[in-house]
Amino acid sequence: MAHCIVEYTDNLGVEADIPGLLHKIAAKFRDSDGVFPIGGIRVRALRLTEYVIADGREDDAFVNATVKMGAGREPEFKKRFFGEMFEIIKAHFAQLYAKRYLALTLYVEEADENGSFKQNNLHLRFKK
Amino acid sequence: MAHCIVEYTDNLGVEADIPGLLHKIAAKFRDSDGVFPIGGIRVRALRLTEYVIADGREDDAFVNATVKMGAGREPEFKKRFFGEMFEIIKAHFAQLYAKRYLALTLYVEEADENGSFKQNNLHLRFKK
Amino acid sequence: MAHCIVEYTDNLGVEADIPGLLHKIAAKFRDSDGVFPIGGIRVRALRLTEYVIADGREDDAFVNATVKMGAGREPEFKKRFFGEMFEIIKAHFAQLYAKRYLALTLYVEEADENGSFKQNNLHLRFKK
Repeated sequence: MAHCIVEYTDNLGVEADIPGLLHKIAAKFRDSDGVFPIGGIRVRALRLTEYVIADGREDDAFVNATVKMGAGREPEFKKRFFGEMFEIIKAHFAQLYAKRYLALTLYVEEADENGSFKQNNLHLRFKK
Repeated sequence: MAHCIVEYTDNLGVEADIPGLLHKIAAKFRDSDGVFPIGGIRVRALRLTEYVIADGREDDAFVNATVKMGAGREPEFKKRFFGEMFEIIKAHFAQLYAKRYLALTLYVEEADENGSFKQNNLHLRFKK
Repeated sequence: MAHCIVEYTDNLGVEADIPGLLHKIAAKFRDSDGVFPIGGIRVRALRLTEYVIADGREDDAFVNATVKMGAGREPEFKKRFFGEMFEIIKAHFAQLYAKRYLALTLYVEEADENGSFKQNNLHLRFKK
């Protein structure tokens, strides 16, 4: 289970290349030595059209990524792995960040195992 | 308080019958012997148009339902009740699941009582 | 870090003045004696077009605000501050509430510090 929801403000325009970002995040999940099974990776974006940022006076922008995953990964793994993922996000937006007001965030949340129910035939494709 | 947010990828098309799914989930909440007051049931869907699933190479799809409810229900109740709700979700998608790659998930989250504020006149309609 | 996501059902129409509501919520965050830095305020709305509320038989509506913030604020502060925020939300919808079925909620969630990553150049604008 590796869910990621990327909210982004629509004032970022096409330069933000959100499809490219989603592919990079999914690639990072795949590059986890099996911690995140490939068939469970689900990265999506929500385009925001109504928002007020800070004092509401400028053309501010933000991107907020929220990961939801099963509980039980070690704190050290989480710090390292998602620190690396955040570096990927920062690199993706480096040019925009250099020229406009932009807030980038990544939050990691864990699902309650007792409240998790799944059925997924994608895993079949990735088993030999 | 019984919130449910159903995210679904738009490649599922009309065959997914999301309106029908929302009605079934709401009906299941109503069929809870009063655990979930009728006036507090709020089931909604978010249609996803931007996503990368697994290796991003196939026309994969997913549906992710997230329940948010007040804390305090017994673990046994949660396991049984939401297990039943997930069976309803699986049955709803059984035909699609048999013929395409599809991941179904249901996660249950509890709100912090100290951080919950409500005003709701729907309850009036369901009181005699 | 002060995130707020306002979900609202589209049957509320323009009378709901969602842009006005977002501005009021952002103003309340700014009026926090520095607890919430101005540059970290991000309030946005999601318009819902697919939903089933209660028994699904009436033109019911709801507005659900979810705050996500860093952990560590005192319970007393949270009760008071978000109680005040909820009064602002109730006042905003008082006319609609008086004439239709409407459920209003505000939930406050805290991010896990070990799973939080940020980069934000808006803060520069608010530092002297």
